[in-house]
Amino acid sequence: MSELSELGERDIVASLIKKFDPNGTYALGDDTAILDYGKEILLITTDTICQKTHIPEKAKPQDIGWYAAAINLSDIAAMGGRPLGMLFSLGLPANTPTKWLDELTDGIQECCSKFKVPVLGGDTKENDSITITGIALGTVPKSEILRRTGARPGDIVAMTGKLGRGLFWEQDKENNVSQFLRVEPQLKIGQMLAESRAITSCIDISDGLSTSLHLLASASNIGFEIEFDSINLIPGLNAKEKMLALHYGGDFELLFTIRPDKADLILNLPDITQIGYVIDDISVSVVKDGVSEPLPDRGYEHFRD
Amino acid sequence: MSELSELGERDIVASLIKKFDPNGTYALGDDTAILDYGKEILLITTDTICQKTHIPEKAKPQDIGWYAAAINLSDIAAMGGRPLGMLFSLGLPANTPTKWLDELTDGIQECCSKFKVPVLGGDTKENDSITITGIALGTVPKSEILRRTGARPGDIVAMTGKLGRGLFWEQDKENNVSQFLRVEPQLKIGQMLAESRAITSCIDISDGLSTSLHLLASASNIGFEIEFDSINLIPGLNAKEKMLALHYGGDFELLFTIRPDKADLILNLPDITQIGYVIDDISVSVVKDGVSEPLPDRGYEHFRD
Repeated sequence: MSELSELGERDIVASLIKKFDPNGTYALGDDTAILDYGKEILLITTDTICQKTHIPEKAKPQDIGWYAAAINLSDIAAMGGRPLGMLFSLGLPANTPTKWLDELTDGIQECCSKFKVPVLGGDTKENDSITITGIALGTVPKSEILRRTGARPGDIVAMTGKLGRGLFWEQDKENNVSQFLRVEPQLKIGQMLAESRAITSCIDISDGLSTSLHLLASASNIGFEIEFDSINLIPGLNAKEKMLALHYGGDFELLFTIRPDKADLILNLPDITQIGYVIDDISVSVVKDGVSEPLPDRGYEHFRD
Repeated sequence: MSELSELGERDIVASLIKKFDPNGTYALGDDTAILDYGKEILLITTDTICQKTHIPEKAKPQDIGWYAAAINLSDIAAMGGRPLGMLFSLGLPANTPTKWLDELTDGIQECCSKFKVPVLGGDTKENDSITITGIALGTVPKSEILRRTGARPGDIVAMTGKLGRGLFWEQDKENNVSQFLRVEPQLKIGQMLAESRAITSCIDISDGLSTSLHLLASASNIGFEIEFDSINLIPGLNAKEKMLALHYGGDFELLFTIRPDKADLILNLPDITQIGYVIDDISVSVVKDGVSEPLPDRGYEHFRD
């Protein structure tokens, strides 16, 4: 009998989308769920972190709390949304120290306060291992929403910030697990991109740049040609690690495509770098030293070894 | 160092509410979170079921899926809401059979289809043990919302349906685990109660009637006098088990209070029974054979043995 480990997260999600939304009515498969609500779109997203797969051994509860809030807000950012509130469902072992829960929720509150997001409620249950589900609600005007679909050949592909955050802290996780978990959701720039009406598609790079490019390509039915040299690495990583950084998760920058006639406007904003072009062909390639080669989808995937 | 098991779920939740909403701005602590959104109130609720504490050993995945959807919709019902959509965050071991996930999501879909609720999205992660978080969104006009607060002395207290569903199936769980999990959210009657504008407070009886009465009493700062004989038991339970049924979880009927001048209107609706009165004194008592005695809060609580 087949097991989930033989399928991997993406095939599982694809089969669930087919089951729950066979006609595409609810547009499942974006960074957040969407719900038509008057002139606005409601954005709802949920992301769970589990002791086994997400929480480094030496992680401090306050950093885990920040992370649980931030990764959900990052999904709201990827849709160009303004967050309305968050809920948290906490599954914790009965022998969890009260102090641990207190510090966890301090971290949640710290992140939510920074981004002015009220914590509206949640659920607390006994569980075998730590399981923290964040839920974020947001809103975005219908005319501004950023989706994974909509990129067209000739569009510019760009990203916020620098690549390699996940890789850098992962390598030094023993000492820097705190920095690894202190993800910054790109809410402000996401809203700015949405208001510009110049963006044809967007995603956050949570599972690695290569995976995010393949997800955008498949959603918009286009391809990408990425210029290797144009990608900025964070300080601390060397050139040899750059290819690895393209496949590494934990970055949480925004990856997006721009209408060519509005490209200058967007590329002049701070912390935004063009990294390539949208092409007609459904493929993702990277040009390095004048040679173009395929960029495979090698990002992180759950249920796989 | 103190542990969560020494506090119990209610004290934990109370401390979290104090932390996240010290001024009561967001009215945490109702059946669902609420968010002011134009003329409507958005309702958002989440409820997690964990292998250890919620899922009977012989449970079929299809019934677990139904249950995960239904208990969240029951919270929307308790606020008088119309559900807009659901999300599910699934934490599953890697060796979970694909067929198991397929049947689980069949059950989710069956419940959501019955109540015409679209599944809008979710999250799938690898976890040590089965952890299913349901998230339900709903909406209710501001003037109609049912809250835990608002009951006044002299109001009638009533409930939908009959008591004892949880107790009955629990006793025979070996053979009837399916029925135990096939909870019916009282959405239709919840909306009817909301539209009547005759209801002063409402809650669903998920953690037992005694607990629900104490929660309503404490939220509204009033008390209850319950008439033991007026409570209807489901067929199959005998009179001796009635007191136990008052403390048993798993019922998911609605418990609510009615303005006295509108009581006839509501009590003439099918499947609604008056079970007592709201009193001034902050206490919950039950009158049995002419004698009034306190009804302690003995419902189910997580993190407690």
